Amino acid sequence: MEKQNHALATVLMMAAIESAKQGMAQGQSPFGCAISVGGQIISVSHNRVVQDTDITAHAEINAIREACQKVTNIFLTDAIVASTCEPCPMCMAALHWARVKEVYYGASISDAAQAGFNELQLSAADLVKQGQSSVILIPDFMKKECTELFDLWVSSAQKQVY
Amino acid sequence: MEKQNHALATVLMMAAIESAKQGMAQGQSPFGCAISVGGQIISVSHNRVVQDTDITAHAEINAIREACQKVTNIFLTDAIVASTCEPCPMCMAALHWARVKEVYYGASISDAAQAGFNELQLSAADLVKQGQSSVILIPDFMKKECTELFDLWVSSAQKQVY
Repeated sequence: MEKQNHALATVLMMAAIESAKQGMAQGQSPFGCAISVGGQIISVSHNRVVQDTDITAHAEINAIREACQKVTNIFLTDAIVASTCEPCPMCMAALHWARVKEVYYGASISDAAQAGFNELQLSAADLVKQGQSSVILIPDFMKKECTELFDLWVSSAQKQVY
Repeated sequence: MEKQNHALATVLMMAAIESAKQGMAQGQSPFGCAISVGGQIISVSHNRVVQDTDITAHAEINAIREACQKVTNIFLTDAIVASTCEPCPMCMAALHWARVKEVYYGASISDAAQAGFNELQLSAADLVKQGQSSVILIPDFMKKECTELFDLWVSSAQKQVY
């Protein structure tokens, strides 16, 4: 992990966490994602599944879609991504399709499952390895701050799992 | 496979193939998907990745999003789905999240890879099995008609792989 990317990833993750908190304040589930290309943050999103009545509206999918619009390109080549939680197989495969370079994430799929989400039991690392993707994963990044989002959410009255 | 679902799946697959052809006529890649709930077709979509500048706009993702809007529900419980091609891990995981019941598909991920797409080397069946999903897969359904879409596409001047 290069120092430069580590510093950028910290800024991205702080934006992702802030977005997740904004989402939770609106009754959304505790996930955020931020994407940078060329050192610039080009998209930040929280999960909007309930808000948009769209089961595909995970934070990473939203951030990828917005990033594609921003750069007017279906490929996010060399993008650095920070996600508060390990990407589920839907999001991990989307990151592969988008050809991002590195994905930093904090909490794990098992943390999400413990919070009640109907997670597929397949890690992002296993999908990357078995699928022969070239996306680089950096797990456990700002893990404490990211797992705390689930603690906040579990104690919320508005929570809805899926 | 129940006879009733088989008949419905045939109608769905015909709609999915027709949609894929319409997409190809507009320069899109050769994938279509149709979804039914309660015996009614509620969404039909082709791939719109290039058209929408959205790497996540696979046929299945589009059809799921439209179906969620149609039934005003994030869950497509008991839905029957027909896809011209085996769902990639992004789409397979989305179908899991949507809690659909059965997915009929024609062509395979290796057919798509042969046509030039940057497919992850993980079958829908492996994702379902390893992920412990309850979605039921019915492969090789109207396979000839579905693989012919790739033949049409490979000979098209407008094709763009990703």
